[in-house]
Amino acid sequence: MVVVMKAGTPAVEIDKMQENLESIGCTVHRSQGENYCLLGLIGDTRKVNQSQLEANVFVEKILRVQHPFKLASRVFHPQDSIIEVDGVKIGGGNIAIMAGPCSVESEEQLMTIARSVKEVGAQILRGGAYKPRTSPYSFQGLGEEGLKLLKKAKAETGMPIVTEVMCLENFDVVEAYADILQIGARNMQNFSLLKKAGKSNKPILLKRGLSATIEELLMSAEYIMSEGNTKVILCERGIRTFETYTRNTLDLSAIPAIKELSHLPIIVDPSHAAGRWAMVEPLSKASIAVGADGLIIEVHHEPEKALSDGAQSLKPKKFVQLMDKINRIAKIY
Amino acid sequence: MVVVMKAGTPAVEIDKMQENLESIGCTVHRSQGENYCLLGLIGDTRKVNQSQLEANVFVEKILRVQHPFKLASRVFHPQDSIIEVDGVKIGGGNIAIMAGPCSVESEEQLMTIARSVKEVGAQILRGGAYKPRTSPYSFQGLGEEGLKLLKKAKAETGMPIVTEVMCLENFDVVEAYADILQIGARNMQNFSLLKKAGKSNKPILLKRGLSATIEELLMSAEYIMSEGNTKVILCERGIRTFETYTRNTLDLSAIPAIKELSHLPIIVDPSHAAGRWAMVEPLSKASIAVGADGLIIEVHHEPEKALSDGAQSLKPKKFVQLMDKINRIAKIY
Amino acid sequence: MVVVMKAGTPAVEIDKMQENLESIGCTVHRSQGENYCLLGLIGDTRKVNQSQLEANVFVEKILRVQHPFKLASRVFHPQDSIIEVDGVKIGGGNIAIMAGPCSVESEEQLMTIARSVKEVGAQILRGGAYKPRTSPYSFQGLGEEGLKLLKKAKAETGMPIVTEVMCLENFDVVEAYADILQIGARNMQNFSLLKKAGKSNKPILLKRGLSATIEELLMSAEYIMSEGNTKVILCERGIRTFETYTRNTLDLSAIPAIKELSHLPIIVDPSHAAGRWAMVEPLSKASIAVGADGLIIEVHHEPEKALSDGAQSLKPKKFVQLMDKINRIAKIY
Amino acid sequence: MVVVMKAGTPAVEIDKMQENLESIGCTVHRSQGENYCLLGLIGDTRKVNQSQLEANVFVEKILRVQHPFKLASRVFHPQDSIIEVDGVKIGGGNIAIMAGPCSVESEEQLMTIARSVKEVGAQILRGGAYKPRTSPYSFQGLGEEGLKLLKKAKAETGMPIVTEVMCLENFDVVEAYADILQIGARNMQNFSLLKKAGKSNKPILLKRGLSATIEELLMSAEYIMSEGNTKVILCERGIRTFETYTRNTLDLSAIPAIKELSHLPIIVDPSHAAGRWAMVEPLSKASIAVGADGLIIEVHHEPEKALSDGAQSLKPKKFVQLMDKINRIAKIY
Repeated sequence: MVVVMKAGTPAVEIDKMQENLESIGCTVHRSQGENYCLLGLIGDTRKVNQSQLEANVFVEKILRVQHPFKLASRVFHPQDSIIEVDGVKIGGGNIAIMAGPCSVESEEQLMTIARSVKEVGAQILRGGAYKPRTSPYSFQGLGEEGLKLLKKAKAETGMPIVTEVMCLENFDVVEAYADILQIGARNMQNFSLLKKAGKSNKPILLKRGLSATIEELLMSAEYIMSEGNTKVILCERGIRTFETYTRNTLDLSAIPAIKELSHLPIIVDPSHAAGRWAMVEPLSKASIAVGADGLIIEVHHEPEKALSDGAQSLKPKKFVQLMDKINRIAKIY
Repeated sequence: MVVVMKAGTPAVEIDKMQENLESIGCTVHRSQGENYCLLGLIGDTRKVNQSQLEANVFVEKILRVQHPFKLASRVFHPQDSIIEVDGVKIGGGNIAIMAGPCSVESEEQLMTIARSVKEVGAQILRGGAYKPRTSPYSFQGLGEEGLKLLKKAKAETGMPIVTEVMCLENFDVVEAYADILQIGARNMQNFSLLKKAGKSNKPILLKRGLSATIEELLMSAEYIMSEGNTKVILCERGIRTFETYTRNTLDLSAIPAIKELSHLPIIVDPSHAAGRWAMVEPLSKASIAVGADGLIIEVHHEPEKALSDGAQSLKPKKFVQLMDKINRIAKIY
Repeated sequence: MVVVMKAGTPAVEIDKMQENLESIGCTVHRSQGENYCLLGLIGDTRKVNQSQLEANVFVEKILRVQHPFKLASRVFHPQDSIIEVDGVKIGGGNIAIMAGPCSVESEEQLMTIARSVKEVGAQILRGGAYKPRTSPYSFQGLGEEGLKLLKKAKAETGMPIVTEVMCLENFDVVEAYADILQIGARNMQNFSLLKKAGKSNKPILLKRGLSATIEELLMSAEYIMSEGNTKVILCERGIRTFETYTRNTLDLSAIPAIKELSHLPIIVDPSHAAGRWAMVEPLSKASIAVGADGLIIEVHHEPEKALSDGAQSLKPKKFVQLMDKINRIAKIY
Repeated sequence: MVVVMKAGTPAVEIDKMQENLESIGCTVHRSQGENYCLLGLIGDTRKVNQSQLEANVFVEKILRVQHPFKLASRVFHPQDSIIEVDGVKIGGGNIAIMAGPCSVESEEQLMTIARSVKEVGAQILRGGAYKPRTSPYSFQGLGEEGLKLLKKAKAETGMPIVTEVMCLENFDVVEAYADILQIGARNMQNFSLLKKAGKSNKPILLKRGLSATIEELLMSAEYIMSEGNTKVILCERGIRTFETYTRNTLDLSAIPAIKELSHLPIIVDPSHAAGRWAMVEPLSKASIAVGADGLIIEVHHEPEKALSDGAQSLKPKKFVQLMDKINRIAKIY
C-alpha cells in the first residue's frame, strides 16, 4: 500500500501520518518527489483501514499493491483447486457440464429433461426450487416440493444436484437435498448468506453479481472460505453494461483473469448472460475455448411453456449439438 | 404489450400465436406491415409470461407498453405519498434530513454525533449496528449492542432512528429498536428480505442497487408493497459506471424520473455515492435542487478514527454549513 | 413503430396525432387499451422523426419495430458478404488473420515482425503510421514515412496492408498506400470521416466504439454504405464497463448478435480489449469459437521497447502457439 | 509512479528494471515487502512509457501518482481560469447561460428563438449548422447557410455565437463565423480536430464523450492547450450507463471533481443528458447548485416540428421559468 500525500503538505503532517502508520505495525518507506510525498507500507496491509487514511485532509490518494483476498488468492495457493461432487471433478482442467430446467415445474417435466441431458453427457443436474424473481407476481418456485423432485431425479439418473439457496430461512432444507448450493448473482453480496454457506460442508456455486468486479467476486468467495468452507466454485454469468441487445454482457475475459488471481474453479452460465437461446451454443463454445472449467445450461423440452426463462432455454435436440461441439473443442486442450 | 413476429413468419404461425394470446385473456389487434406482423395486446398484460412468448422461434421481439409495477405506480396513485415517522414527514414537498455516523461505535461517539446533528436541524438519526462489509476482515458492527445505543440516543435527542437490517435472522431485533428499517443497496433484490419487510408495519428505506435500473428499484418497492407495507421510502445512492474518480456515479436524473413514475418519496445519500467528504456538500445541494424529498448523510466527529466510511464522513462543522445551504435552497421551492 | 399515447389523452389529441402520422405517409392501426392508446405505424418508418413525436406532451413513448439500418441489415441481404483483398477472403466462413506491430517504428522493426507473422500464416499485415493517442505527449506515429515502410513490407511478404486513417486531412495519402483502411474506435462516430470512407473503393475496417451499441456500430457501417462503399468489415475490440482488471470488456456476444442482424463480416481485436498480452491467446481462441471471421493481433519482437502498446503485444513465439490453437479450433467448424 | 514487481521476481531482474528506470532519468526508491518489491519513481514521470514497463513479465502492475495532464491541472495553475467572450465571462464564479435551437432551420425559426432567449437573460446563442447525426438519413444541418443566419441573429441580438465544428474540412468556415467553437461528445477524442482547435484563437467548448472518464476529458483539453489555445470550456453532458429511462446519465459529481483537478470552467448540457424536456429544469437547477459555471440549453418554439432534438427542447415559456429558478439559486452563492 502506498499513501500519497498532497502537494504542499507540511512536513509535520507527513511525520504524523508516518508515526500513525508505524503505530499500527507497518514499516514505512518515505520518498519525497517534486510535488508529492509517497509513504510505502511494508507488511500485511489487508487490515489497514483505508477509509480512515483517506479521511486525512492531506492524503491525495491510496494506491493498493496487494489484493484484499488471501484464501482465494493464487499467490498463497498456486495449484488449481479441484472440487469433487459424487465423483465429478470440477477444476484443474476437467470440464463439468451442469444442465437442466430453470425451474422445477413438475415430476414429468423434470424427469424428461433430466434423462435427456444425462443421455448426452451432462454430469450434474440443475433446477430451481426457490426462485428469485424480479416481480412478486411471477412464479416463485415449488419450494421443498421441488427439492423432493430433484432428489427423485438424482435417484433415477445418478446425477448430483445443484440448486439455489435464497435465504437463511430455507438454508437447511436446501442443504439437506442439494449436492451443490448455488448462491445467485443478486445474493453475491448477501454477506449473512455467505457466512452461513461458509459453515456448510457442501460445495458452493457462487455467481458473479451483475455489477460485481472480479475482485468483489473473489472477496465474496473469501467470505465463504474465511468461515471454513473452501469448496467454492465461481460462475461468470454476464455483467450489466449499456448494451441492450443481449440481456447481459458475458465477460469471458474474466475467465483468464480469475485463473491468474485465484486457484478456484470457474464455470460459465451462457443462458442467463445472453437471455436468448440462439446465443447459448456459440457462447458455450467460446467459454470452453477461453478456459472455463465447465458450463451451467438451461434446457427445457417445451420452452414455450416454461414457467421461467423460456426464451433462453435450449431444447434437448439443440443441447445434443452443443455437447458435440463442446467435446471437440475440449479435446484440443 | 406488442408481439413483433419475424419477417416471413407463415400466417398459420401468426394465427397460432394470436389464439394462444387470446386464450390467456388478451384482446389482440393485428397489423401486418411490409416486413413484420404486429400483435397488439389489450388488457392487463403484467401477468403475461414474456419469456414464454420470446421462446417462440417466430417472435422477433416483445415491446412493452406498461411498466410492470402497479402499487408503486403514479398512474394508479397520482398523489404523492407522505410517510410520517414520529411527526417527521417524508414526501409531498417536505425535506427530511437523516444524519449520523456510518457505524455505531461507542456510546460516547454516538451521543456526540447525535447531539451535534440534532442541534442544526437533522430530524432522523442514522447509524449502523449490523454492517454489510465487502471484506470479512472488516468491522462488522456492534449488533444488538449498537441498537441499544441508538435507543439511548433517541431517548435523549428525540430523533427517530433509521438503521439497516441485513437478513431475516436479525430482522425482528432490528425491527424492535428501529423507527425506519433500511434495506441496503446490496440487498435491493434480496427478495426474501423484501417479503419480510412487506409484513412489517415500520417504514422501509429502500436503497437503489449499484446496478439497478429505476424500474427494478420500483419492482423491489412493489415486492414490499405487495405484502401489505406501503410505507416505502426510496433512496438514490449512486450507480456503478466506468468512472473511477468518484466511488459511484450519483444519478440525480433518477429523482425527476421517479417522481414521474411513482408516488413514493425519494431521498438521496450523497455520502456513499461520492465516497469523498469534500463532495458531500455540493451533491447535497444539487439533490435538494433537483427535487429530492430529503438526504441521508454520514457525520463523524473524528473521521480519521471512524471504524467505517471515514473518508466520506462530514465533520460536524461542515455539516452545519451544509444545513445552512440546504435550507436556503429548499426555501426557493 | 408504435406510438403509445399517455393514459387520459383526450380523443381529439389522439385524432390529431393519427392525422399527423397519416400525413407523412404511414398507415395507422389504432388500439385502445384500458390505460394507453396505441398507434401502430405500417410502412417505412425509418424516416419518421421520432424526436418530433416524443416532443408531443401526450406521447408516453415510442416503441421501435424495425432497426434503423437497411444496407447493413441481413433482412434485406440474407447471404454473408465476403470481402476480398488481394486474394484473402474475409467473411462467409473464412478466417482472416491480421497481425503486426501496433505502430510502425523502423524498417528493421517492421520487417522482422512482418516476416515472422507471415511465416506462421498471418494473411494481412497491420501497422499504424498515424496513431491516435490519449496524450499529446505520446509518440504520434511516423506518418507517411510509416506508410512507405508498410509498402516495402508488402512488397517483400506479399501481405496486403491494413492501417488506420485518422482524419480527412491525410485520408488520400493513407488510401494511396493501404489495402484496407481502418477507422478506429474513437472515430466510429466521426461522421465526416465515415462519409469520406464511403466514397473510397478500398475496404473499410470499422472498429466498434468503446461505448457504442451494436446498433450504433451498424449505423456507422450504414453511413459508409450509404455513400456507395459496401466493403465494410466490422471489428469488436472491447467495450467500456465498470471492470478495471482488464482494459476493456471484450463483448463476444456481439459476434452472434451481429451475425443475426447483418451480413457484414466481423473480426475481433483481442489485444486492445484485454490490454495484457497474457490474455490474447485465450480471447483469440474464444473469438474463433464464437464465430468471428478473423482476428487482428498486435505482435512485437521487443515489446519492452515498443513505442506503443507494448503491454498487449505478443512476442512472435507466442504468436506461433496461438496460430496453432486457432487453426485447430477453426477446423471444427 | 510506482512499479510493483511480481512476488518471486529474481533480484537480478529487479536490478535490471531499476537500471532501466534510472537510465531514463528517474530517481528510484526501492522497498522490499513480504511478497512484492516496490520501485517508487521520483521525477516527471509523465513521459515514462507505461506500456513498455507493463510488457516486462516480472511487472505485476504500475501505480500512478500524478495525473497525466499538466496545462489543464490545478496543481500548476491554482486560480480559476476565466474566459471572456464579447464581455461575457465564463468561469471564476460567473454563471453563463447559452441557449438556442438544436439546429438552425430557417431565419424565422432562429430569430424567434434568439429573441425569446435573449429577453430572459441568455447571454450566448447556441445553434447547429453542421450536425453530427447517428443516421445518414437524418437532417445534417444547413451548413454555411446556417452560419450566416447565426451571424444575422448575433447582429440583431448582440449575443455571441457558439456552434459545432465537426471536422477539419469546414473548420475554417465555422471559425470565421463562430465566437465559441464547440467540439461534440463524439469528437472528444478526434485528436486531429483537437490539434486544429489548439491552433485557433477562439475559445473551445469541449464536450465530454459518452464514455470518457474525467481524466480523459482533461487529457483532451490538454491536447488543445498543448498547441497554444488555453481558452477551453469543458461541458458535462451525460455519460452512458445501463440506465435506459433517461438517454444518458448526467454525472453531476464530475463538476466538483473537475473543480478539484482543473482550473478550467465547466458548464452543463442538461438537454442532451436527459433527452426529455421535462427533466431539463430540475437538472439545470441541480447543475447550478452543484457549482457549474453555466448551462447550454436547447430551446425551440415549436418542438413538435424541430428537425432535430424536439423531444428535449424547452418551449420559450418553460425557459422563462427555468431562468427565474436558476437566478434564485445562483444568488445563494
